[in-house]
Amino acid sequence: MSNKLKYSVITGTMGQLSDRFCSSGYKEKDITLGEKLKVISNIKEITAVELCYDIDGDESDFVEVKKLLKKYGLTASVVNAPMHPDRKWRFGTFTSKNGNVRKDAVQMVKDTMDFAEKVGSNIVNIWPGQDGFDYSFQADYSKQWKHFVECVKECADYKKDMKLALEFKVREPRNRCILDTAATTLLIINEVGRENVGMTIDIGHVMQVGQNMAQAVELVSNYGKLFNLHVNDNYAAWDDDMVVGSVHFVEYLELFFILRKVKYDGWLSVDIFPFRENAFEAAKESILYMEKYDQLVEKIGYETLNKLIEQDNPLQALRAIRESVFK
Amino acid sequence: MSNKLKYSVITGTMGQLSDRFCSSGYKEKDITLGEKLKVISNIKEITAVELCYDIDGDESDFVEVKKLLKKYGLTASVVNAPMHPDRKWRFGTFTSKNGNVRKDAVQMVKDTMDFAEKVGSNIVNIWPGQDGFDYSFQADYSKQWKHFVECVKECADYKKDMKLALEFKVREPRNRCILDTAATTLLIINEVGRENVGMTIDIGHVMQVGQNMAQAVELVSNYGKLFNLHVNDNYAAWDDDMVVGSVHFVEYLELFFILRKVKYDGWLSVDIFPFRENAFEAAKESILYMEKYDQLVEKIGYETLNKLIEQDNPLQALRAIRESVFK
Amino acid sequence: MSNKLKYSVITGTMGQLSDRFCSSGYKEKDITLGEKLKVISNIKEITAVELCYDIDGDESDFVEVKKLLKKYGLTASVVNAPMHPDRKWRFGTFTSKNGNVRKDAVQMVKDTMDFAEKVGSNIVNIWPGQDGFDYSFQADYSKQWKHFVECVKECADYKKDMKLALEFKVREPRNRCILDTAATTLLIINEVGRENVGMTIDIGHVMQVGQNMAQAVELVSNYGKLFNLHVNDNYAAWDDDMVVGSVHFVEYLELFFILRKVKYDGWLSVDIFPFRENAFEAAKESILYMEKYDQLVEKIGYETLNKLIEQDNPLQALRAIRESVFK
Amino acid sequence: MSNKLKYSVITGTMGQLSDRFCSSGYKEKDITLGEKLKVISNIKEITAVELCYDIDGDESDFVEVKKLLKKYGLTASVVNAPMHPDRKWRFGTFTSKNGNVRKDAVQMVKDTMDFAEKVGSNIVNIWPGQDGFDYSFQADYSKQWKHFVECVKECADYKKDMKLALEFKVREPRNRCILDTAATTLLIINEVGRENVGMTIDIGHVMQVGQNMAQAVELVSNYGKLFNLHVNDNYAAWDDDMVVGSVHFVEYLELFFILRKVKYDGWLSVDIFPFRENAFEAAKESILYMEKYDQLVEKIGYETLNKLIEQDNPLQALRAIRESVFK
Repeated sequence: MSNKLKYSVITGTMGQLSDRFCSSGYKEKDITLGEKLKVISNIKEITAVELCYDIDGDESDFVEVKKLLKKYGLTASVVNAPMHPDRKWRFGTFTSKNGNVRKDAVQMVKDTMDFAEKVGSNIVNIWPGQDGFDYSFQADYSKQWKHFVECVKECADYKKDMKLALEFKVREPRNRCILDTAATTLLIINEVGRENVGMTIDIGHVMQVGQNMAQAVELVSNYGKLFNLHVNDNYAAWDDDMVVGSVHFVEYLELFFILRKVKYDGWLSVDIFPFRENAFEAAKESILYMEKYDQLVEKIGYETLNKLIEQDNPLQALRAIRESVFK
Repeated sequence: MSNKLKYSVITGTMGQLSDRFCSSGYKEKDITLGEKLKVISNIKEITAVELCYDIDGDESDFVEVKKLLKKYGLTASVVNAPMHPDRKWRFGTFTSKNGNVRKDAVQMVKDTMDFAEKVGSNIVNIWPGQDGFDYSFQADYSKQWKHFVECVKECADYKKDMKLALEFKVREPRNRCILDTAATTLLIINEVGRENVGMTIDIGHVMQVGQNMAQAVELVSNYGKLFNLHVNDNYAAWDDDMVVGSVHFVEYLELFFILRKVKYDGWLSVDIFPFRENAFEAAKESILYMEKYDQLVEKIGYETLNKLIEQDNPLQALRAIRESVFK
Repeated sequence: MSNKLKYSVITGTMGQLSDRFCSSGYKEKDITLGEKLKVISNIKEITAVELCYDIDGDESDFVEVKKLLKKYGLTASVVNAPMHPDRKWRFGTFTSKNGNVRKDAVQMVKDTMDFAEKVGSNIVNIWPGQDGFDYSFQADYSKQWKHFVECVKECADYKKDMKLALEFKVREPRNRCILDTAATTLLIINEVGRENVGMTIDIGHVMQVGQNMAQAVELVSNYGKLFNLHVNDNYAAWDDDMVVGSVHFVEYLELFFILRKVKYDGWLSVDIFPFRENAFEAAKESILYMEKYDQLVEKIGYETLNKLIEQDNPLQALRAIRESVFK
Repeated sequence: MSNKLKYSVITGTMGQLSDRFCSSGYKEKDITLGEKLKVISNIKEITAVELCYDIDGDESDFVEVKKLLKKYGLTASVVNAPMHPDRKWRFGTFTSKNGNVRKDAVQMVKDTMDFAEKVGSNIVNIWPGQDGFDYSFQADYSKQWKHFVECVKECADYKKDMKLALEFKVREPRNRCILDTAATTLLIINEVGRENVGMTIDIGHVMQVGQNMAQAVELVSNYGKLFNLHVNDNYAAWDDDMVVGSVHFVEYLELFFILRKVKYDGWLSVDIFPFRENAFEAAKESILYMEKYDQLVEKIGYETLNKLIEQDNPLQALRAIRESVFK
């Protein structure tokens, strides 16, 4: 029942980070992909990076990227399609009312798939943050849904051995996003009906909508669709993208218990926004907390926890955690 | 494109209402079903009541109930199965770990189906508020899901011409409920795979989870599964069950626009908790606000709104509302 | 800098617990005060109980209560005034528009003060859950504030050596409560201007409103007004009143660090609603988690934590916690 | 009891708007202050703009700004101190642990005061969005409070005829902000104890924390400290900065009723983030909704509403609104 967990980190975590109140960014300076990979490679538990493909930046030249990956002993776990940074997507990508925009968005994802193949990754992450709406009387909900399904199909058929991982989030940047929860995303995936289309669960996005991370992971796994995990912590009301373990504890333990139960063999990618923190230290601490959770599940015992769940008595689990976990 | 809306009210709205801090209830006295129907019948827009079947109370004797309905010129729009009031369901009904409890729960729903048939209703509402969990390490999520699907199937097959409407709510009374959103419920409905199994959307439950009521209604309608609507208002963070129109406005207008779009021909049932208010007045005001919303959509014009949505310009819709709606 | 923490538990925690969907209560049977004290006395860390004075129940007869306390080796840490259970308070106690109701409410608190004195407690807890409003255009906010201040003054002057601890909560049972946060309560306390009027901070109420427990404790302590603490856990969106430690971790560690910093010498009262759990076990587990938090602060070192805070580097604190805390 | 309302708009509303996912901004191009004032001057109800002083941009040259204001027939209602855009404030301004940063921040506010005086405004708005913390064990809460009070005092004493309006917000950009609510801000203002220090209430910030806008306005007015209002709408869980009236209705009506009650004679400044909308239309629509609310209060009748509140019957108020407001 033991698992060998695989850790990755999104390159975005190491970059310049801005928000609507500090648009020039919180970091003293931008760093190159090479510099990012160099610091990431110092975290020995990490064996891969999740890349963010972009047309103009230094994550677009696959030759250079491959060279750097090799230099730092890393692989590309997943590549993110650039669904949000360009203002041309401000009214949506796959759900845009403008057919040309949808066409461009499909091409952009195909380009990402090409890039992913070239850098040796077999998963493209699609987080359609600009797809949704802000106001009432803004969206034709049926058309949005239909267009989304169609575009995903077209992308999926482009390269059948490239996995597409749809990532949900209830809101931000749009006030309401089309892929709001794991269940909505499963409905979409079911309608798309392609083997290579599945899901990325961002753990923080589950908490943001008041749901349980372990439950979401188990549900999606049961449908055979859990392709990737993004991990971070928050105060359970917004996607704060904080260091793993900085707020929650018992829910994380349960998550790592469930990862064993569903025999998860995908990546655990650190996806945080350390606006004011040292990004390297923040990513490292996140990994070390995850390692610790996995060890603690081992320590308490997978079977022990399984039996406690059968009794429907959360007090016994809390006691076992207290007695086994703390020094 | 005009709709003739049908209004109902849940009998629970007119009853004794308590909470965890005033367990003896906020009303000076309980009133009988006859008294409830009498006051409801004074609201001329209401043509039906949604009943709450219970084993011990006065909504269990179908002969008496039919007599009263006839006396007050009302029909039974829907009958609610008593999924939550009895403490025997405290660890769940269809998802209980105890097979005997699940069996009893199925029987309880079948009994409700029998009762519904006898009082002339063709929909039984199933809101499994006790099914879910409170703590981590309490639920076996896969087994809960499996048991839930099995139990619904068994109930559905018991009487194929009786519709079962599953009602979701993200939380309360359990901290986490199994049917948390419309999308989760559609997944369950798809797995159940029975013609007579669909959904009740409680409008307040949509807002509670930070989603959009019109979008949810359109999604479920597109699956052909919108059997019933519960209507109430809240502050968008909890299921406050307030009088319709007491907080929100534009989202309701959009809802009544969408009800035309999807040609909804089911019931709009007032489901509020007027703890400290006159229940009759509270239900009546809710109905009158809904009537007003429908008239305002008519006044602005269905086609006008449709065109504004096509433009992806919510400001135009806001202007149209402002200019057409307010005196 | 070491603290000897004092633990108590509210008797309500051990009683029948109901909610609006299971009004008859989740427990198989009610238990008497004697039975409650008996089980509480089995938790050796607990040296007191926080009583809930009521007119009709078994927490009204001070002779009997004193006898029971003595029998079980417990003292009365605090006595709660019955501000919410009776429906006569449904439109408020101190803020009722009805002068007679306000007068009765003041008398009810004075009676509680008499009772508290007789059972050997020097603090009466005032949680005005029914004081506030549900809808817009319902409350005269200025009059509510004025009446509240006046009534507290009158109670405070009745017995100057009896402390009155005002407890805030942003909502529930009212949709909006007058004492919503620690800061509002400090404003009220400042206006009241009596030595013997201070505050109870319920830790869960702080998280419910999206604030930080340690910060609230330090703020109120700096005003010299922290009279009492209620402790419980929740999912940070509602007052779930869960077992301490079942959701959050680092914030609790910080709380126990701050309790040392402010040299808190009041009670830590377990105030949970174990609807479906064994109340004795739930209270005990809560106490043992708190004991553990205090030990972990000791283990990491108060001065170490203090220095880490001075560096404005939360990653160092997270590392210290990870390295010192987990086995 | 009639009020002549004064409308303003913050220049930031008309500018380039970015967020953490589209850092280059949603607008096709930046526009100059002159262009902003030109479009604002087309909204006839607006007689002033709220400026955002900055050191490098075109809101720093008071001669040019005065010329433009005159050209477009506008005055400067308020000037915002640049508390957040520069990354030097990322760990706080007045609450920074670094004494030099605090000193710089005080100077920055004094500079804003100078600028405000020169452009003819008598209010400087201070929204300390970077002051607070993100993680546990990051802030020394007592020192933050003390430093904040000291810095405000120093600024206040610099120019006693220049008003300083402190603006609260529970979170964003920091996960926890020091001025979280109106009540906390009143505590700070009380400690500062200067005539010229008061508050700006941002209506959306009140809803974000689950409180009532009218209540907050009345409370702060009763302390004589309501200097300014920012107006916008949101979904009640985040500071969405949407067009006024796009979500809520009855609470706004109550707000405009209360503005009469407290005889508010300050500005109503539109403070929205129309990321994807035409900013001019969005600001204009916000003003027109506010005008409408004020007219509707007039139409229903101030005294009528006052009497309904005295009855503690929100249903009567809802009826009066329904019958008086809708066509």
